[in-house]
Amino acid sequence: MSESEQIAATPPPEEADIMDSEDRLRPDFVERVLDAVDKGDNETARKLVEPLHPADVADLIELAARDEREGLVKALAEIVDADVYAELNDYVRETLIDEMEPEQVADLAGQLDTDDAVAIIEDLDSDDRQAVLERMEPDDRAAVEEALTYPEETAGRLMQRDLIAVPEHWKVGQLIDYMRQTDELATDFWEVFVVSPDHHPVGTCKLSSILRSPRGSMVTDIMVEDQTLIPVDMDQEEVALRFQKYALISAAVVDASGRLVGMITVDDIVHIIQEEAGEDVLLLSGAGEGDINEPIFDTYRGRVRWLAANLMTALVAASIIRIFEHSIERLAVLAVLMPIVAGVGGNAGTQTLAVTVRAIATNQLTGSNRWRAVGRELRVALLNGVTIAVLIGVGVTLVLGSPSLGGVIAAAMLFNILIAGMAGVLVPLTLERYGADPAVASSIFVTMVTDSMGFLAFLGLATAVGLVH
Amino acid sequence: MSESEQIAATPPPEEADIMDSEDRLRPDFVERVLDAVDKGDNETARKLVEPLHPADVADLIELAARDEREGLVKALAEIVDADVYAELNDYVRETLIDEMEPEQVADLAGQLDTDDAVAIIEDLDSDDRQAVLERMEPDDRAAVEEALTYPEETAGRLMQRDLIAVPEHWKVGQLIDYMRQTDELATDFWEVFVVSPDHHPVGTCKLSSILRSPRGSMVTDIMVEDQTLIPVDMDQEEVALRFQKYALISAAVVDASGRLVGMITVDDIVHIIQEEAGEDVLLLSGAGEGDINEPIFDTYRGRVRWLAANLMTALVAASIIRIFEHSIERLAVLAVLMPIVAGVGGNAGTQTLAVTVRAIATNQLTGSNRWRAVGRELRVALLNGVTIAVLIGVGVTLVLGSPSLGGVIAAAMLFNILIAGMAGVLVPLTLERYGADPAVASSIFVTMVTDSMGFLAFLGLATAVGLVH
Repeated sequence: MSESEQIAATPPPEEADIMDSEDRLRPDFVERVLDAVDKGDNETARKLVEPLHPADVADLIELAARDEREGLVKALAEIVDADVYAELNDYVRETLIDEMEPEQVADLAGQLDTDDAVAIIEDLDSDDRQAVLERMEPDDRAAVEEALTYPEETAGRLMQRDLIAVPEHWKVGQLIDYMRQTDELATDFWEVFVVSPDHHPVGTCKLSSILRSPRGSMVTDIMVEDQTLIPVDMDQEEVALRFQKYALISAAVVDASGRLVGMITVDDIVHIIQEEAGEDVLLLSGAGEGDINEPIFDTYRGRVRWLAANLMTALVAASIIRIFEHSIERLAVLAVLMPIVAGVGGNAGTQTLAVTVRAIATNQLTGSNRWRAVGRELRVALLNGVTIAVLIGVGVTLVLGSPSLGGVIAAAMLFNILIAGMAGVLVPLTLERYGADPAVASSIFVTMVTDSMGFLAFLGLATAVGLVH
Repeated sequence: MSESEQIAATPPPEEADIMDSEDRLRPDFVERVLDAVDKGDNETARKLVEPLHPADVADLIELAARDEREGLVKALAEIVDADVYAELNDYVRETLIDEMEPEQVADLAGQLDTDDAVAIIEDLDSDDRQAVLERMEPDDRAAVEEALTYPEETAGRLMQRDLIAVPEHWKVGQLIDYMRQTDELATDFWEVFVVSPDHHPVGTCKLSSILRSPRGSMVTDIMVEDQTLIPVDMDQEEVALRFQKYALISAAVVDASGRLVGMITVDDIVHIIQEEAGEDVLLLSGAGEGDINEPIFDTYRGRVRWLAANLMTALVAASIIRIFEHSIERLAVLAVLMPIVAGVGGNAGTQTLAVTVRAIATNQLTGSNRWRAVGRELRVALLNGVTIAVLIGVGVTLVLGSPSLGGVIAAAMLFNILIAGMAGVLVPLTLERYGADPAVASSIFVTMVTDSMGFLAFLGLATAVGLVH
């Protein structure tokens, strides 16, 4: 084999061969890696994957089929390091971790920041968790065990304990020397905390301020006093909103007595911002966690409950239709038209619901502007209702040659769109007021209202005005 | 008036009086400020608002009614500074800016980072924009004008041109001295860029690495070479995904020839991550931008188009029912039951759709695992379909005393949930493949399929098996 052929056999992958224009691994690249592993050619697989960022290696493992993953991870050996595990989807990581010995897991966790180690260990069942913890270095173990004492999805689980806190009497030069001389510091930090003798945070120094100040300045002169503190038991959604609102890079975490116990950095928060903002669409549609890596039976359990609840609400609507069974028997075209009234009403309700749920989630809609929001939705519903009512009313009149049927469907449509607008904003606001998550149950209520009221208005009106002989 | 009474008259607000436990301004606090403004007591209003962060002042202005906002802003005078404007909702800011003279807007823009100044100026119509630009400092004006040459919602509009770029031959000490001596540096920066003589980025130094290295080190020794570069014309959604995936704090922006032209920092990205992740629920429900501050007529126009499209799809479903009008005339209970089949199918389709759209948006679902995702959804649909079919089949048999009707509705339900699962995953995947945003139009198609197929399956089967005499 000539040298040029050898090179052609395993060409060094170019950036454009690996990723598409949207930063996704190209399907043919994934295929090449999996083919190499399949053929036992681990050398080629490693060469292909070598240039990837740990986040992309994690993507590669996720994109492989379930039964290919273990082989892939074994073939790539040391490329799949702790950083890759930190980036992996929870479900995918869990199945890989399940195959490992406690020593290996302990070793993995030891290489990670506390928050990432906690993410791996918190998913283990209690026996495995104990076995792993016993095999960890005492320092790391203590940090993880402390984090585990805080409830899931709170600041205490997200924070790292490695941070730099200095007393108020320090000068900038002293701080720089301390940082130059101390090896065991957090790998990534962007701010340094100034604390009082009893370890309460009194201010924050940006690294840029430290770098730009003369060595003789006091840290208290360059610190920002007005800092955002995160209570250790704060829900991660609130933490994410706080980071976003105040454009934080890092923040001090304090315990109930106000003592500094940890630090959260923005890179640990961005994926929570993304998850929390994206979960509304999943919650509103009853899709549960909506993770495509979730075991199928869990997905089934999550979704079927919602469908069963919807079945119940559909039965309510059906029982309303049943009241008018005789009307339908005599004038079957009512059955043809009634789903239009219910369906478009449902869509109008969903629009209002989506806007309201997002506005609540982003703290734009509060007690202060609640009634203004209701008024706004009603006015939009009125405009929408009139437009759609005219369209359907004229259409039915022309196509079926019945102005009275056209009038009835137009009136029912306007009524239902108004009801939909009201339900779409009042249901989530009410749930929120009583402490429920407005995204979770709102859409079932709203659909029940728009379906039932749509059928009731249309069939009732048609019967009442004597359309049915 | 005694001193203690005076204090009682305008008590300094406590943190807990201002914000609720979820970081929202308390309605009674908002009320107190607005009342004071209403009474012309600007002094009290200012005292109340003084301790607020600019982001909270912006929230306060947004929470006020439209006709109260101008008065509020005037009363608070210098508290509502450039930082507050930068935090304001686009629509609210626009109405306030419309009332200002070009000099005032130019002055405001001059106090902001380029990206925030651009956000204010890009919304002006071209005459006003010109008037404002002419009144800005030449440097600021050049920066804004350059940013405006890039398309909206791209990296070029988000970046700031103030950054620190140093040549490869510099030492750490030189860099620190440069930063200490140069006044006109970006206010917030977390990384320093190392560039080649032709201004191509060759590496990034974290400020923490600079602080922790001896003054004699070369910047090239402490820089990270493997950096993520952002093309200046990259869509902001891609920029956000890149920041999130690689946990970036800041990133260099490069032009087509690879030269460093700007920097984006994570605090400018978090709200885009949030917006992009949250917009799927609005797009899927046809709620347009879903901004509660949007003028009502714009909201109406955005939503009514969607409802009209839904009206069309409802007509398709109605035309299918019409085929079976005679069956319904003879057996009106079919009209009672048919919305159940269509409705639950629609919900099953929406679940699958939500999961698929989120998985595509987060780059978890690509060409590599497309068919696996389809298979997964089909299996979930089969489990859901069988469960719901049994429930409704048994229910109808017992309540209506008709096993044949129970069998028909069970079969139609299973069929429709399978169809819903397929449509829910195939429609968005197909739209995405042809370059359309899967969140925008998917749900109209999916609902049309589940409605039409639900009616067709149920009514067709009931007619075919001879239930209708």
